[in-house]
Amino acid sequence: MKVAFFGAGNMGEPMAANLLRAGYEVTAYNRTRSKIEPLAAAGARIADSPAAAVAGVDAAITMLANDQAVRDTMLIDALSALPAGAVHMCTSTISVALSKELAAAHAAHGQGYVAAPVLGRPEAAAAKQLWVMAAGPKDQIERCRPLMDAIGRGVSVMGEQPWQANLTKIVVNFMIASVLETLGESAALVRKAGMDVHAFLDVVNALFNSPVYANYGKIVADRRFEPAGFRLVLGLKDITLALDAAGGERVPLPLASLIRDRYLDAIAHGQGDADWSALSEVSARHAGIETA
Amino acid sequence: MKVAFFGAGNMGEPMAANLLRAGYEVTAYNRTRSKIEPLAAAGARIADSPAAAVAGVDAAITMLANDQAVRDTMLIDALSALPAGAVHMCTSTISVALSKELAAAHAAHGQGYVAAPVLGRPEAAAAKQLWVMAAGPKDQIERCRPLMDAIGRGVSVMGEQPWQANLTKIVVNFMIASVLETLGESAALVRKAGMDVHAFLDVVNALFNSPVYANYGKIVADRRFEPAGFRLVLGLKDITLALDAAGGERVPLPLASLIRDRYLDAIAHGQGDADWSALSEVSARHAGIETA
Amino acid sequence: MKVAFFGAGNMGEPMAANLLRAGYEVTAYNRTRSKIEPLAAAGARIADSPAAAVAGVDAAITMLANDQAVRDTMLIDALSALPAGAVHMCTSTISVALSKELAAAHAAHGQGYVAAPVLGRPEAAAAKQLWVMAAGPKDQIERCRPLMDAIGRGVSVMGEQPWQANLTKIVVNFMIASVLETLGESAALVRKAGMDVHAFLDVVNALFNSPVYANYGKIVADRRFEPAGFRLVLGLKDITLALDAAGGERVPLPLASLIRDRYLDAIAHGQGDADWSALSEVSARHAGIETA
Amino acid sequence: MKVAFFGAGNMGEPMAANLLRAGYEVTAYNRTRSKIEPLAAAGARIADSPAAAVAGVDAAITMLANDQAVRDTMLIDALSALPAGAVHMCTSTISVALSKELAAAHAAHGQGYVAAPVLGRPEAAAAKQLWVMAAGPKDQIERCRPLMDAIGRGVSVMGEQPWQANLTKIVVNFMIASVLETLGESAALVRKAGMDVHAFLDVVNALFNSPVYANYGKIVADRRFEPAGFRLVLGLKDITLALDAAGGERVPLPLASLIRDRYLDAIAHGQGDADWSALSEVSARHAGIETA
Repeated sequence: MKVAFFGAGNMGEPMAANLLRAGYEVTAYNRTRSKIEPLAAAGARIADSPAAAVAGVDAAITMLANDQAVRDTMLIDALSALPAGAVHMCTSTISVALSKELAAAHAAHGQGYVAAPVLGRPEAAAAKQLWVMAAGPKDQIERCRPLMDAIGRGVSVMGEQPWQANLTKIVVNFMIASVLETLGESAALVRKAGMDVHAFLDVVNALFNSPVYANYGKIVADRRFEPAGFRLVLGLKDITLALDAAGGERVPLPLASLIRDRYLDAIAHGQGDADWSALSEVSARHAGIETA
Repeated sequence: MKVAFFGAGNMGEPMAANLLRAGYEVTAYNRTRSKIEPLAAAGARIADSPAAAVAGVDAAITMLANDQAVRDTMLIDALSALPAGAVHMCTSTISVALSKELAAAHAAHGQGYVAAPVLGRPEAAAAKQLWVMAAGPKDQIERCRPLMDAIGRGVSVMGEQPWQANLTKIVVNFMIASVLETLGESAALVRKAGMDVHAFLDVVNALFNSPVYANYGKIVADRRFEPAGFRLVLGLKDITLALDAAGGERVPLPLASLIRDRYLDAIAHGQGDADWSALSEVSARHAGIETA
Repeated sequence: MKVAFFGAGNMGEPMAANLLRAGYEVTAYNRTRSKIEPLAAAGARIADSPAAAVAGVDAAITMLANDQAVRDTMLIDALSALPAGAVHMCTSTISVALSKELAAAHAAHGQGYVAAPVLGRPEAAAAKQLWVMAAGPKDQIERCRPLMDAIGRGVSVMGEQPWQANLTKIVVNFMIASVLETLGESAALVRKAGMDVHAFLDVVNALFNSPVYANYGKIVADRRFEPAGFRLVLGLKDITLALDAAGGERVPLPLASLIRDRYLDAIAHGQGDADWSALSEVSARHAGIETA
Repeated sequence: MKVAFFGAGNMGEPMAANLLRAGYEVTAYNRTRSKIEPLAAAGARIADSPAAAVAGVDAAITMLANDQAVRDTMLIDALSALPAGAVHMCTSTISVALSKELAAAHAAHGQGYVAAPVLGRPEAAAAKQLWVMAAGPKDQIERCRPLMDAIGRGVSVMGEQPWQANLTKIVVNFMIASVLETLGESAALVRKAGMDVHAFLDVVNALFNSPVYANYGKIVADRRFEPAGFRLVLGLKDITLALDAAGGERVPLPLASLIRDRYLDAIAHGQGDADWSALSEVSARHAGIETA
């Protein structure tokens, strides 16, 4: 099975490496050529353009940063070159609107399309421990399942409409961001009252018993936001996707609105490239606690 | 060891029963006499007044609904009758301010005081599975430890100032309430988009892997808020305690402020006696989703 | 001076009529042909297409509902047909981003461009009482000044960059929306406490002494949101413009975020075509006050 | 007519002076004796205690900072000494709850009680330009009317229940605070976009044409928050009164909640003694704009 892979960021690179390890013939493309060298070393063929990358493939996988990148790469550059009968498995976190647009465009070209965004940070990608949320026509999902198995530890099928997987991913990311906001406010109060945040988190962990709270709680208590597993500006992108989706459905999301404003505050204070958990520092700053 | 026990609500009753089961000689008091009959049947002596309840005891335990009840019972009615040398172990969720006041009042009367609020719903209380957050002078904590062991599965010691345990409990409750708000907003969006909330929660549970998300997620998806494990009006009480504590420390808690307004909305719509997870229905209602 | 006029809504129609009254030769175009008949009766020539409308004119004026309409009409359909040397005076409330795009596009075609959004409701438009916020190159502003004088009672020049007028309009509209939110919350509390809202507003008016508070206060107190002077869906459009502009500048606007969520709530409850002051009913509904 | 006057702050001092000027025989009391010297110089008799101040008077007027001060002075110290038949005219901004308590206490002592909070800053008090919101039994209002006329330019009678005047005052103060929040957010966006805030406010004033916007707009644009006409900590007190009143009525006030959090932020950043319009600096700070 021949696969085109787009994206060589800190998620895409380990994912493509796992596909190579699983025996797939991978042609990789990345706008910034230099970032793709590790994949070439790992056995990937490097393409000079999106169109060249998809020539003759069975599947094209995208792991790109945002709507704009997926639109430019797939809808504009590669769409006509992707063979009829091939399938586009889009693992990026993109908008519900773009996912619907992709479904229509691929259908018009006789191509398959599956949305398959993933949960997990770069370490999980490297360890093949991503969780995949997939949606699309059943036969296309089954066709892509070996690809999903090559990059993750499990798959949840969300429905036959690709956008259903995108919405799931968007909402789940909102839920994690809301944990960050909660941790930030809680830590600010506990810290300013003169208590030890780590001791407080022991109780939190006894209660929640969740890796999400354990991992992010430690980051928040240590105030260590570098290096970024997931950059804060991408957190802003994702919460904006949630607000856009909710706007389309006429659903108020006041907590998501709050989080968006906090991200803007963090970026205005130079934390756009820090880990998105630096959201918690906004609460500290507003409480007059000295910055980490 | 002779123990006075105040409160026979859905938390206090099973806690007192566990103390009896552990062999303590328990004298119980409750403002509404009828509610205390089950404890009498289980072997407790019933007192006619708070003062009578504490006469000659080694320890007095309070599990009452709010500051007002603890103030009336302990600070006004029982304080002088509690023997010097006895200890008050307060398991109620009360304000930081009242906890400081109790510490001072008991010290002035030569009595010990330990704050020991608990985590867990009535089922956990019955199963001796509460988690105790304790704070106070070390010797008083040790004195009370057997009592804590008789009602719970573990103890976190938060410090030597009793209010530290109260603040911990208040903040942890805020964290759970924020999960309810997050679940409510998420479910509203997923539901209004036409997706199945239970399928969505499967992904959430794969990610969070937490009993808190699993339990409350199911309640929110099923929209079953009766019977109440913890009444919504008490949720309002607790978030108000968080806001009061944060006000005292000059810490803005915008998410807690949001939750307070949502509780008021729920109560204005007749849900004050439903489970506090009915908070999630506010999001549904605002999105124009028909009420459960 | 020959003028093309786009838009025959409840703002555009009286504005175009005032231009006719001032002696301008007006060619009007509207997507829905029937809505333009009153202008034909008032002496306007009717064009069959945007391109036909701008052929040979000195100026083109747009009063259209949103970015999409301005983009379709001017950037796509009429741009090449607008004579070099002519000026586009855009009175619509559009985004900062589109205004910058228009400035570049018109410059590339040797055309002038002035942003001149207006303040005032349909009655003010009819009475030539609009207030114009204008921005653009000084010479273009001066060229358009007679047109502005024909539709309004005064002009504020905001700068030489057209987007400065658009941002001003967007922020001012946010300020009015925040008055609506304030009135809504205040009226809900006063009403639920059993007091008379009109009597309360007498005090408000004694204090603010402002036509904005007087006009909207009366609407809110009377709960009369039909007919709409400015439709609530357009209010949502405008607050979204404010949030987008603020996002671009990395400025958190929590009050604007709150208002956006309230608009979504109102639309989810069927009030999208009511006057935007129906925003105040959201507060009433959340307080459990029976709907107007 | 003999009058006791409590309070010699920047509001009370000019009010008492106006009563002296109107010919009343005034006995003044202030906890901090030194602050009352100017009133002594103006002809007031100085009392050594609240009880001494009210002995033999026809009316007692309170202009004190908060509930605690009114409670201590009137309910605890002076209640029994105030002659039966005398009336307490309370001009302080106090809670609805305390106003109800005062009404009951004075009735039990055969004394009259009128709530008469005032609108206006110290300059207005000095110029006899306060606006009085009065509520209470009609005959008591009429009895107090000459006193109101001596300190203000007009009276709005809000009803026969004293708390109705207090609620009015609390809500009106919330409305002014929401103008401050709106101005703060607007100024932050306009300023960060590189525009001139004063020029922007010219448009705002053309629209609102209100002294409230003109006065506070200028302060916000100039970023001059000293000296304080009304201290920010008192703004926090008042918004808390609004939230408490709303909580009692089960009315969510999300904008008031937002403002409370902003005040806490301002106080945490050392602005508690600045003018309450320094609330606007919170928006600037969150946007990363350098502090004034």
